[in-house]
Formats: sequence, structure tokens, C-alpha cells
Amino acid sequence: MAAISFARGAPAPECLDQALIGDCARAALERDGITILSYGTGGGYGPLRELLAERHGVAPGRVFLTTGGLQGFVFYAAVQLALRPGRVLVEAPTYDRPLKILARDGAEVVTIAMDDEGLDLDALEAELRKGGPISFLYTIPTFQNPSGRTIGVERRRRLAELAAEHDLPVLEDDPYGLVRYDGEPLPSIHEIEGGQKVTFTSSFSKTVAPGLRIGYFVVPQELAAAYDDRAVSTYISPSLLPQATVHELMHRGAFEPNLERVRGLLKARKDAMLAALAAEMPEGTRWSSPEGGYFLWLDFAGDVDAAHLLTRASEAGVTFVRGADFFPNASGGWSSARLAFSYETPERIAEGVALLASLL
Amino acid sequence: MAAISFARGAPAPECLDQALIGDCARAALERDGITILSYGTGGGYGPLRELLAERHGVAPGRVFLTTGGLQGFVFYAAVQLALRPGRVLVEAPTYDRPLKILARDGAEVVTIAMDDEGLDLDALEAELRKGGPISFLYTIPTFQNPSGRTIGVERRRRLAELAAEHDLPVLEDDPYGLVRYDGEPLPSIHEIEGGQKVTFTSSFSKTVAPGLRIGYFVVPQELAAAYDDRAVSTYISPSLLPQATVHELMHRGAFEPNLERVRGLLKARKDAMLAALAAEMPEGTRWSSPEGGYFLWLDFAGDVDAAHLLTRASEAGVTFVRGADFFPNASGGWSSARLAFSYETPERIAEGVALLASLL
Repeated sequence: MAAISFARGAPAPECLDQALIGDCARAALERDGITILSYGTGGGYGPLRELLAERHGVAPGRVFLTTGGLQGFVFYAAVQLALRPGRVLVEAPTYDRPLKILARDGAEVVTIAMDDEGLDLDALEAELRKGGPISFLYTIPTFQNPSGRTIGVERRRRLAELAAEHDLPVLEDDPYGLVRYDGEPLPSIHEIEGGQKVTFTSSFSKTVAPGLRIGYFVVPQELAAAYDDRAVSTYISPSLLPQATVHELMHRGAFEPNLERVRGLLKARKDAMLAALAAEMPEGTRWSSPEGGYFLWLDFAGDVDAAHLLTRASEAGVTFVRGADFFPNASGGWSSARLAFSYETPERIAEGVALLASLL
Repeated sequence: MAAISFARGAPAPECLDQALIGDCARAALERDGITILSYGTGGGYGPLRELLAERHGVAPGRVFLTTGGLQGFVFYAAVQLALRPGRVLVEAPTYDRPLKILARDGAEVVTIAMDDEGLDLDALEAELRKGGPISFLYTIPTFQNPSGRTIGVERRRRLAELAAEHDLPVLEDDPYGLVRYDGEPLPSIHEIEGGQKVTFTSSFSKTVAPGLRIGYFVVPQELAAAYDDRAVSTYISPSLLPQATVHELMHRGAFEPNLERVRGLLKARKDAMLAALAAEMPEGTRWSSPEGGYFLWLDFAGDVDAAHLLTRASEAGVTFVRGADFFPNASGGWSSARLAFSYETPERIAEGVALLASLL
């Protein structure tokens, strides 16, 4: 029996509609095979770029399809750090893979504190007023990885104002925004700000399938040429077949129904985890209650060493990611955990939470 | 009427079998959809890695599928330059895109001369004997881009010996080797040397379709962990659907028949170009006569300025790439051209060569 994984930030296999995607792949090749099979442009499959450009109200030349969102982050960080060398501001905690890329590239990373409503803008403003060059701010405002927290609309407005006032480039990473189970959608910071300083990025990994590896970036006009150059000089063009497959899926109106199905599947899992935590966890334990996404953040009661607990939990058959992995140089999160509810069934989620609680 | 392009190093649209590829994509998703649509490993789709590992007689963990060969070059150069900082040796002329990547990464690039049989090994040995750290040698030994030249078997043996003797990492780039129209296949340097210092790379861009973006790298065991880390931290995994599609195509025995068809199509184009050059070009013009691949190299008679000629040719309706683009800092090739015969029909090739000759 495989361990119950609250570690994998991946969709449950039931989310993946292989028959639909297979049919779309074949249909796309029938319709536009020569274009799909030939060398393309650095930004990827034209019709999907156009569709996303329309959605975001920008010119198609500002939309770049990448090999998953992470590849696009590599491009963005390289371009932005070359154009504007300086500190990179990140939320604490934040997605671990970008932290690793920034460390490898030798970037100076500065953390900005969060509270239950996401990024602390007073802390951000204090950092901006310190002076000295800043390259960009990286934020995941909606159902954040790893915390599950969401920045509210007022803070989004103030963040957009700060970006304008301080000439601050912002990378708004939003892979989870459409995977909302409860509450009302919020405007993106990109939308509020008008896309002058804010780059928006999302992905089809959480709405269609991660193995397709389709991220997309909507960059400010002034970044488009450098971003394109970076993409072309890395891979000439990304793989066009997965992109054309997703375009076909949207073109035939199958995107929204598929997303509704995914939302239903995952909401049941989120609810199962919240119910199990409320029933099983010792007093003093705190956790976030996200309205969407894949993750919640849990602060253990007292002084539980999450690393030590993880070792025992893995032996017992349940895994998670320790909070410290989401802070640069493990500078925080020692008594916290990221719990993913996206991968396991509701039954296994209940079982796993009970198992975890029994170890506390 | 579009210009006749001897510039595009791309297969003719007739080479791309969209019905076959569409059918393979759907069949692959039917057979192994959940794996293909989920996050994969840094090295790509397992069954295709295994198949290529068997072909090359190595462990599957040494095979990495990349977003086209260029992406893999980016990884290789980054890994090798970090492990062994030093000079990068390249053929002169060589493929222009790697030159651009090396320049951007700040690498010190040293050119090694070629003659009609490819890399000049006396020149290479002299460079090796100079001492000082060398990071790696980049070579395209078969139907080289841009020259169409091929290193013979005796030179391959000596190159393998030099690599062993001087502890010289070699990147053997072989996208064209299987696209052979005449003559007998040669052993790869990787095969001769045993894969200790030599990394072999090829691609499905020239045998199946470039838009699929599938390159592959067979790295020495000692590089595998660093290469994997670079891949994972760039895109988690590459797009699996194109890779599974090619695996399905090989699995059902369609790879060789498709390749035979491509060879037939392209041989007719190569023969058309050679015939037209012999009939049309002024005395003193020299060109290579490759037994395969996409390109031939042409040295104009006298002191023709290829850049100036290209301007006039483009106006007249025929394009090529000037030789200087394939030398670092345009340090050679001023009176030479790379002519691709892969893209245009035999009729348009004859027409284009006549047009070009009329301008000389």
C-alpha cells in the first residue's frame, strides 16, 4: 500500500480526461497538422496565444506559452535580472522551486512577511522605502502555494498602486485562481494595474493536465522582445502539439465543463481534509481554510519539529512537505506543514489526517 | 509568391505525416493516458527513454528527452561549464544557435579549423596541448550544420582517443545521421569511445517532426545527476504527449518506413540542388556534396561579399544564410553561404539556384 500523500501538489488521476484530450490532439492535428508539426515561434502555438491574449485584453505578441509555468519563471527571472539587477522580493513562505532557481542564479532574495490575508503590504512598503535596486516582486496572490492564502481585493489595489509608485516589476503567479470551489473570483493584480509593470502567469496544469506542460506568461510590452529572444534561444519553439490540443479543447467549448468537473472532485477533497482536521487535530493547531487551490498550511501546536514528525509520519504511511522548505535557507516554518488535498481520495484523506494526528 | 528559401533548415511540409502522428497521439493517450497527463520525471517519458537507452546500450537514467535538441544543449553547457569551467572548443563554421547561447553565458569560445572531411584533428590536438582548462568540445560530425561535411571513421577513432588521452568531454550532436541518402552509416564517436567522456545527442526533428520538439541526450553516468537536477529545476518534466506519440510510432514499427519516405523526398531535393549548382554556378565556385542531412556549404568564386549578395538575392526572391553567421563574432565565412535543400521542391530548387547564379 502506497503512503497517503499530502506532499504531492498534483491533481488526482480522476481529474485527467484522457479520452477527451486524445480526441482533441487528433482533431488538432487533422485541422492544423503542418503548422503544429513544423518549427514554430518562441511564444508557442499562435491560435492559443491569440485566445489568451483576448482573455487578458493584450496583443498576442505579449503572450508566451512555456514548458509549464516553471520554465517561464526561468525566462522571466533571467530577463528581469539582466535588465534590472537587484533584490528579488518573495513572500514568506513561497513556492520552493522558484527559490531554488533564484539561489542557483545567485540572486539576492529578500522575504516579505505574510499574514492570514496574504502578503503584508506594510512590510513590502518598508522594504521598498529602504532604497537600493529591486529587480522584481514574486507573488502568488490566490490560493498561494504553499499557504493556501489569498490576497483580498483592497490589498490587490494597494499592491498595484505601490508597483506604479515605486516602478516595481511584479510577477503575479496564478495557477490556481480558476480552481475555486467557494466564494467569488477576485480581479487579478495585472487586471487592476493594467499590465504596465505586472506580468501575469498561469498554467493549464491545474485546469487540464500537468503532463501537457503548458504555462503562459502575459508580459509588459517593454519585456516582450527580450522574453521572446530568451525563448527562441532556449528551444526555438516549445512543443506545439499539447498547446494545439488545449486550443482545440477550448475551441469546442470543453474547457469550462472539464473545469467544473475538476472543481467538484477537488472540493470534496478539500472539505474532507478540513472536516478531518477539525475532528482529529489537537487543540492549538491552526490551519488555513482556502476557497480553492490544492493546499492548506498547518501550524502545529506547541513546538512540534515538523522535520522530525515527517520522518515518523513517513514510516507510519503518510507524507507532507515541511514548512521550512518554503522559506529561503529554511529561515522559518520549522513547526509548520504544507498539506495538499488534491491528490488523495476523501477516504484516504480522512485516514491520513487521523494517522498524522495520532503521532502528535 | 513567397521567396525561394535556401535559408530554412526545416523539413518540407510533405515530410510531416499528420494523420500517422495524430493517430499515434490518440493511441498513446488511450494506452497510457494517466502517466502522460501527470507530472513526469526530468528526463521525460519513461518508455521512450528505455527504448533509446537500449538502442545506445546504456542505462535509461542516462537518457534525457528535452524540448528539442537546443534545450538540451542549454542544459549540457550549463552543467559542464559549472563542473569544469574553461574554454569551449567549436568547429568553424558551426551551428549558430549554440554559439549564441555560449556568448550569452559568457563562455570563452575557441574555434578549431575544419577541412573537407570535417574537424581538423591536428588543430584540435595543438589546442589541447596549449594547456589551460577546457570545458568541452562541441562537434557535429555527420552532415554538419552548416557545412554538410562528415568526419570519416579514422578521424572518429582518433578523436575518441584524444578525448580519453586528454580527459576531454565531447558533445557529439547528431540530428542528421539517420537522414542519410547515399553511402554507409558510420559509427558514432560515442559508440567508439564507449560513452565515458562523449555525450551523444540527437533529435526527432529531422526524422519525424520538428514541432514535436523532442531532442535526446545520452550523458556519461557521472553527469546524469547534475543533468537531471537542471532539467527538473527548469520544467519539472518536459511535455510528455509528443514523446509518448513518438514512442507509439516506434512501438508500432512506423518509424523506419516514415524515415525511408523522408529520405526519398529529401534525396530528390539534394540531387536537384547539386545538379543545378553544376549547371549554373560560375567557374571557381566550390560546394560540399553531402551524403545526407539538410545543408551544403558554398564558397563563392572570387571575392563575392555574401552579405551584399544576400540583400540582392532577397530582393530577387531567393534567400540563404551567409557563412559569417556560423563563425563566432563573424570571424570567417564572408564569401560563403549555407544552402538548405530540405524545404523547397526540386523545381523551386532549380529555379532558385539559377536565380542566385544570375546575380553572380
